[in-house]
Amino acid sequence: MTDPAELLRAEAAALDAADPLAASVDAFAEAPGIRAYLDGNSLGRPLRALPDRMAAFVRDDWGTRLIRSWDEQWMELPMRLGDRIADVALGAAPGQTVVADSTSVVLYKLMRAAVAARPGRDEIVLQSGDFPTDRFVAEGVAAETGVTLRWIEPDAVAGVTVADVAAVVCDRTALVALSHVDYRSGALADVPAITAAVHEAGALALWDLCHSVGVVPVRLDAWGVDLAVGCTYKYLNGGPGSPAFGYVRTGVQPEIRQPIQGWWSAADIFAMGPAYAPATGIRQLLSGTPPVLSMLGMQGMLDLIAAAGIDAVRAKSVSLTDFAVRAYDAVLAPLGVRLLSPREAARRGGHVTIGHPSFREVTARLWERGVVPDFRFPDGIRLGLSPLSTTHAETLAGVLAVRDELG
Amino acid sequence: MTDPAELLRAEAAALDAADPLAASVDAFAEAPGIRAYLDGNSLGRPLRALPDRMAAFVRDDWGTRLIRSWDEQWMELPMRLGDRIADVALGAAPGQTVVADSTSVVLYKLMRAAVAARPGRDEIVLQSGDFPTDRFVAEGVAAETGVTLRWIEPDAVAGVTVADVAAVVCDRTALVALSHVDYRSGALADVPAITAAVHEAGALALWDLCHSVGVVPVRLDAWGVDLAVGCTYKYLNGGPGSPAFGYVRTGVQPEIRQPIQGWWSAADIFAMGPAYAPATGIRQLLSGTPPVLSMLGMQGMLDLIAAAGIDAVRAKSVSLTDFAVRAYDAVLAPLGVRLLSPREAARRGGHVTIGHPSFREVTARLWERGVVPDFRFPDGIRLGLSPLSTTHAETLAGVLAVRDELG
Repeated sequence: MTDPAELLRAEAAALDAADPLAASVDAFAEAPGIRAYLDGNSLGRPLRALPDRMAAFVRDDWGTRLIRSWDEQWMELPMRLGDRIADVALGAAPGQTVVADSTSVVLYKLMRAAVAARPGRDEIVLQSGDFPTDRFVAEGVAAETGVTLRWIEPDAVAGVTVADVAAVVCDRTALVALSHVDYRSGALADVPAITAAVHEAGALALWDLCHSVGVVPVRLDAWGVDLAVGCTYKYLNGGPGSPAFGYVRTGVQPEIRQPIQGWWSAADIFAMGPAYAPATGIRQLLSGTPPVLSMLGMQGMLDLIAAAGIDAVRAKSVSLTDFAVRAYDAVLAPLGVRLLSPREAARRGGHVTIGHPSFREVTARLWERGVVPDFRFPDGIRLGLSPLSTTHAETLAGVLAVRDELG
Repeated sequence: MTDPAELLRAEAAALDAADPLAASVDAFAEAPGIRAYLDGNSLGRPLRALPDRMAAFVRDDWGTRLIRSWDEQWMELPMRLGDRIADVALGAAPGQTVVADSTSVVLYKLMRAAVAARPGRDEIVLQSGDFPTDRFVAEGVAAETGVTLRWIEPDAVAGVTVADVAAVVCDRTALVALSHVDYRSGALADVPAITAAVHEAGALALWDLCHSVGVVPVRLDAWGVDLAVGCTYKYLNGGPGSPAFGYVRTGVQPEIRQPIQGWWSAADIFAMGPAYAPATGIRQLLSGTPPVLSMLGMQGMLDLIAAAGIDAVRAKSVSLTDFAVRAYDAVLAPLGVRLLSPREAARRGGHVTIGHPSFREVTARLWERGVVPDFRFPDGIRLGLSPLSTTHAETLAGVLAVRDELG
């Protein structure tokens, strides 16, 4: 009987040979000692061109143009980069997206603004398994505004469904805040259908796109989403802690007033007048000076995604995750490893999660061997397969390394 | 009669020759085309070593260690870097300072926390000429918490005095929020005396150190300051939009609870449990993932300040601003330019402000000539003299260039 690993190696080689985006792997910086990087869903890799670009930025844009660069380019950067993300990855027209703060801070601003925009309504709907910061920030907003959190308890693998949401939204609902891709299972929510159910109840829909932006096509304008937030250091490869983006649909911008009214959200930043007047438009979502150096890394990645096209990126993502599931079936399921993600590609984002009681220790040993997935409490390993930087062979190397550690 | 410029040139040369910190100027990156950079109070220059350091960071810490760097170094970076700033420039013991967010967001957190920590008190005291973001954020906090803003109207050049503060604080005062160095005039507030007056009234004292940290010695612990916020891209040379720092005195930490309770402020970040529990200690001031790339620039500058010693930095700063005032007296006062900063060095921070109705246009022409101060509405030019990167000769070149534009 043939070793299943041999068949999988042959399949990986064939898939990589046929991959129309195979060349993009060379666009990323070499990572000496790394045999398989499977955590692109947590921290995307830097582009090969970035070290020189950063060095040139420090010497020229900062070091030589100095303060003049604010007038020449940086004042508009949060809006310009927001529009670029909107165009490449969000399906959103210009003027609705800014890059600012962290995901947690933007979530706070949008949740506060949404509650204020629906006076007389006193509930925020969330799901109990959502990413901690979404839940924790909402807890704080609820405590200070007096609204109640209403929790959906979805199936841990399948994620939130439109039926889950329709069963709880009502005329008390101010806001429904959910994630497009579940950070644990990778389950993909049906954003347009859920958003329609939210609107049916007269509430606002806030989508957390942290685990979908750059890997799953998003159509914010077509889907009628009101508010969104997302992360730029995962599939947009912005580097550790690169700032978040926030989206407010043009039609709801007049209703939205966020609470942290720093000078960058003022109608005229340099008027420095006696009283605050908010900017019109999406700039009102800003607060303080944006971290420009942390906004450089994502720019080359956005160019790369734009050149490939987000639908081609998704096709590669599906190919990688489908292959990971087949490899799991062949070599990990027999060892008692559980599949914690949906089997059907159409219901899954860019990562596949597997579970085993030994995975905390296994992850530590894998990291030492240059195989880098991430561990999620209590016993999950997430295989985060960033399509432009990951091959099927690398995916298989990761799965086989897990097998070796269990064997 | 000797040209006053000749005498000033001789004086500048003598002062530079005798400057014990003269060698530090070479630690900064060259700036081709710049004849005088006088805006270190707005955006400090990068160190010469930084482009290579940034490039190495992208290749190694991010690109090769990848997600492992979170465990190895970045999780503790906001606290470690906060403690470093505290040690080098704030006169504060460890465990009270973090690097996070923007100044505006940290101001919001601290103002909200202070109001909540003084229940039954319903006023925040501010001064009418403070930096816009301080005033605007306070306006927002007042509107949402129901407190009233009580405005001090200080002399525009002399700045806020202890008498100004003592006259308004009372048993209704929850918080007094002021700047150590006035962003317009450069006036230096008497922090220990004002803080004592604030405490006498039972209120909390929040100091904005944006225009003093790294150039004026600060002794937060000795002065009994409760809360502080500051900027790292001015005299700490962190680069455009590098994150702010926040300080909460150990003794008041148990009273302080900030509203943006993201996962980084949770007791156990990776427990990802069902409900939020705040961290104890200063980490509770965090919210989301910090912008690591924007936290690199300041590290070399902190080393440089530590090597020089903050008192020596202040001595050089006083020498530069005193010389700027003498040069003003000799060549600009006769042309009708007004001095908008205190004359006495002991009452002045690191910049000198001068005024003339033509300064908006003059500044634009100076920038084209490679002389870069900044303009402040309505008609001020600020000469921001960052001590470690600026010579007396460069200061004089700036003053003479202003004279030439007016002549």
